Amino acid sequence: MQDTTLSPVPSWPATASRLVAVAAGREPADLVLTDAAVVLVQTREVMQGWQVAVAAGRFAYVGPDAGHCIGPETQVVDLQGKYLIPGLCDAHMHIESGMLTPAEFARAVIPHGTTSMFTDPHEIANVFGLRGVKLMHDEALMQPVNIFTQMPSCAPSAPGLETTGFEITPEDVAEAMTWPGIVGLGEMMNFPGVVSGDPKMLAEIAATQAARKTVGGHYASPDLGPAFHAYAAGGPADDHEGTCEEDAIARMRQGMRAMIRLGSAWYDIEAQITAVTERGLDSRNMILCTDDCHSGTLVHDGHMNRCVRHAIDCGADPLLALQMATINTATHFGLERELGQIAPGRRADMIVTSDLRALPIEVVYARGVKVAEDGVCLVDCPHLDWPEDTRTSVHLGKALEAADFEVTAPDGANAVTVKVIGVVENQAPTEALTAELPVVNGVVEGQGGVCQIALVERHRGTGQVTNGFVSGFGYTGRVAVASTVAHDSHHMIVVGTDRDSMARAAMRLGEVGGGVTVWKDGEELALVELPIAGLMSDSPAEEVAAKAQAMVEAMAACGCTLNNAYMQHSLLALVVIPSLRISDLGIVDVTRFEVTDLFVTEDE
Amino acid sequence: MQDTTLSPVPSWPATASRLVAVAAGREPADLVLTDAAVVLVQTREVMQGWQVAVAAGRFAYVGPDAGHCIGPETQVVDLQGKYLIPGLCDAHMHIESGMLTPAEFARAVIPHGTTSMFTDPHEIANVFGLRGVKLMHDEALMQPVNIFTQMPSCAPSAPGLETTGFEITPEDVAEAMTWPGIVGLGEMMNFPGVVSGDPKMLAEIAATQAARKTVGGHYASPDLGPAFHAYAAGGPADDHEGTCEEDAIARMRQGMRAMIRLGSAWYDIEAQITAVTERGLDSRNMILCTDDCHSGTLVHDGHMNRCVRHAIDCGADPLLALQMATINTATHFGLERELGQIAPGRRADMIVTSDLRALPIEVVYARGVKVAEDGVCLVDCPHLDWPEDTRTSVHLGKALEAADFEVTAPDGANAVTVKVIGVVENQAPTEALTAELPVVNGVVEGQGGVCQIALVERHRGTGQVTNGFVSGFGYTGRVAVASTVAHDSHHMIVVGTDRDSMARAAMRLGEVGGGVTVWKDGEELALVELPIAGLMSDSPAEEVAAKAQAMVEAMAACGCTLNNAYMQHSLLALVVIPSLRISDLGIVDVTRFEVTDLFVTEDE
Repeated sequence: MQDTTLSPVPSWPATASRLVAVAAGREPADLVLTDAAVVLVQTREVMQGWQVAVAAGRFAYVGPDAGHCIGPETQVVDLQGKYLIPGLCDAHMHIESGMLTPAEFARAVIPHGTTSMFTDPHEIANVFGLRGVKLMHDEALMQPVNIFTQMPSCAPSAPGLETTGFEITPEDVAEAMTWPGIVGLGEMMNFPGVVSGDPKMLAEIAATQAARKTVGGHYASPDLGPAFHAYAAGGPADDHEGTCEEDAIARMRQGMRAMIRLGSAWYDIEAQITAVTERGLDSRNMILCTDDCHSGTLVHDGHMNRCVRHAIDCGADPLLALQMATINTATHFGLERELGQIAPGRRADMIVTSDLRALPIEVVYARGVKVAEDGVCLVDCPHLDWPEDTRTSVHLGKALEAADFEVTAPDGANAVTVKVIGVVENQAPTEALTAELPVVNGVVEGQGGVCQIALVERHRGTGQVTNGFVSGFGYTGRVAVASTVAHDSHHMIVVGTDRDSMARAAMRLGEVGGGVTVWKDGEELALVELPIAGLMSDSPAEEVAAKAQAMVEAMAACGCTLNNAYMQHSLLALVVIPSLRISDLGIVDVTRFEVTDLFVTEDE
Repeated sequence: MQDTTLSPVPSWPATASRLVAVAAGREPADLVLTDAAVVLVQTREVMQGWQVAVAAGRFAYVGPDAGHCIGPETQVVDLQGKYLIPGLCDAHMHIESGMLTPAEFARAVIPHGTTSMFTDPHEIANVFGLRGVKLMHDEALMQPVNIFTQMPSCAPSAPGLETTGFEITPEDVAEAMTWPGIVGLGEMMNFPGVVSGDPKMLAEIAATQAARKTVGGHYASPDLGPAFHAYAAGGPADDHEGTCEEDAIARMRQGMRAMIRLGSAWYDIEAQITAVTERGLDSRNMILCTDDCHSGTLVHDGHMNRCVRHAIDCGADPLLALQMATINTATHFGLERELGQIAPGRRADMIVTSDLRALPIEVVYARGVKVAEDGVCLVDCPHLDWPEDTRTSVHLGKALEAADFEVTAPDGANAVTVKVIGVVENQAPTEALTAELPVVNGVVEGQGGVCQIALVERHRGTGQVTNGFVSGFGYTGRVAVASTVAHDSHHMIVVGTDRDSMARAAMRLGEVGGGVTVWKDGEELALVELPIAGLMSDSPAEEVAAKAQAMVEAMAACGCTLNNAYMQHSLLALVVIPSLRISDLGIVDVTRFEVTDLFVTEDE
């Protein structure tokens, strides 16, 4: 049974009697839109001068004349020939990437016309496990738009190479499949596990398939040989990790849906959409998504509207691009009778726009209610009453001091050769570098472009600090940057040139419950508070975006020259992407999938 | 839990470990097909020289080189460049129309390349209710191809106008939704009920939607106004009753799938496929089906292969036509991850053909097993052990005599004016005619083209005979034709010029347990035994087709001049199609939906 306190939209069967009565003219509609150019993504047509009647949050009548659906109480809106398109769907995304709670994320994207999101709360799963997923799920179902949850599949992302706050088990997956808002399994990132037949990964997929839900894929490799085919044979139904036309084609040929991304830092549409627009493959299996959007993108650039516009700019016919953000997505998740098209019975999610190419989002309706107009959200997006412990998730275990960040050299050494995580501009993979560093009073000191990095355990309060070295940020002077957004295990990453500043930055995040802080010369230059799980803020997107912008500027003021400095910082513990990373278990060689020694040994 | 004794195909999750191992090259496949021109309906492409590996009845690898999937025990078949297409799907059909059990129907269509059927056992539902549906469902799941059952929605078809053997309730529907082979609700024929908000019809739809299954539609009216929109708002997800382009377009625009038919007597593809081929509407929501095929069609002409060929002849690109008989159908029923395309994980249902237009069905594989070659079925199609009472379903209640078929005239009348059911050549609707008939010894006698018709109650053995008059068959001499196929309530219809012959024909069907018999001059000219429910034979299609052909010839020998004499006969009790019909409750005026007097009264 669906928990109606969480899912306020009555089902089609629960409202069928009224919908039929309205369409037949026996009862009045709640809302009728007249003189609309209705975009039918189901037939790929635009119907000029059509009318749409809405009752109980769903479409009751879509056709040339809804006059018989109008009663004295019916609100009638003349669209004066403007287009009416279905609300946009984001097929795969992580709310936490916006540093916002589901409520504030919804409030940020509703004015952009996003009315359905398929979200994978993978980050909070690493911090709070199944309980964290449930909290995200519950707040998602409280919103005036549709936020479906994909149950995270891979926490930890790299078993044996890191310790997460909690782990996800096949039993967790099976339990989540019974929740009303769960639409499938989140991206199966452990593709080597699937390819090798890892029973745990196959059990999670099986639990999802048994519940007749959708298994999300994540095949982040350019190898399209037997390994890729084996992954497809394992059951993932989609994949968003393609980056070139060949990737998209390969996925669609294997009976998967190719999800192509435009996120804040993902630009994978242009290279892949040509599979349809130029190579002529059937478009039904191509879907648009954002994957990750920062709050700044949401505030300044848009969300799925940005994605659809970009697809059009890349050569897609507007109706084709809209299909990729509406009906294709709905069908993929088994929801084609529920949303994604303007047709009887579906949730009345729709957008008024006067131009199908520029796609200005003028008015947005969700479930028949006007939720935004001219960029302004008109509805309340309710906040969950987050339990107190979810706001105090940074457990340092002790007062950290500069000494905790010391790397002790081997006895008697004056200089040592250490492994250095080499950040590469505009790339997620790091380089595995080495550097000869001086030893002062028995402690290894960074120099030149090499500064210190520390992974501070923050889930269990062990007080443990893993130290190492990193290059590429360009920091100068006495600086430190700390963040509790530290994919995927989300301990705390501290990077700095000064151990005292590093300790202060870490302690500061302990004090505010997580976030990002930038220190220079003993002063805090910027702070983004992310009190919920150390990942999200429940402040409005505008505030978070402004603080994030100030944080990035502060990093630059510390000498950092990278384009995406903060993202590079937060990915340094992502022990599934080559080459060298840091985790609570040590320095990780991701090429060999093993923990390695910080010091270069003679046989290396 | 799925009853594995009924569903022999292991699920994808149950076989994923093996599929992955085969695709990765760690375990050998059962079967590898090489040098195939693989038709990918998922992308609408033909891949020349591809290879396909099958394990555990499912596709494990589909790509350019399956060499790594071949072991010493793997069967390798070189297709020498021939096309490999997915097995064909019939999206809506009634097995009983073939006068065959599911097993014999399967055996007849497997050589034609049909590997998936979506069947509505509506006829047996009228005779045996939910139990009859379950028996059909159980035999369906025993077959080497996929036969999914749509739970019949409307028994009786016309409540109040006829008495069926059993009735279907919303509770029956809810129970059926838990069976493993139930894919949805069968065609919701009571469209006036849906449009008027009949709680029973809406409850059946709701039970189906709650089970996340597909609601079949049947909107048999040319009215595309508010009534049609109200029907769409009620929930049916498809409709196969369209006959013109406008019908197909209207259904797709309302978010339904347009199923277009080529059956033994349905020719609805040519007029509707132009919605896609000429008007350019998105093709994804158009689906091919047969609805009703007689055994003769199956034996001599084909099944879904005939349907696809015809669609191509009507102007559809072969790949488009194939999509309409494969992936479109699978997606509609929520089975796109299970069948309908040649892609990893799906059931290995496929056809070898050397020409995509002529579509010769050379080899058929189902679940990886070669099931037919060159028109010959190579596998066993197991018969259910039908309970004895299902073979003795003709309960006459007494020995019928000529006197039971007498129409007594009003006292003292020498002639009377009666209502006559007027059969119209090549049309399902009848005319409501009248005739003045002579009275001999107090009994009304047919004359000229007007002969007698009787509805013999056969479900409860009441001994009741409803008598009336019919014209249009052209019978001459002393003849009688009786049939226990008598849509939809399937009592027994007897038409004849001689009451003694009518009684003998009726008694003969009681003796053999049902079927069709033709009598002339006191001799039986032809007999088609349909012992199961009085509707189906468990003999091979060839035998049934031969007997059916002999039966049609015998009707002609009795003077009948109609093109589809037997079909016309068996539809005379179908009290949902205008104008005049017969039921166990009397003569039915289907225009007014009421039982009417046989004699014309003064105010008529």
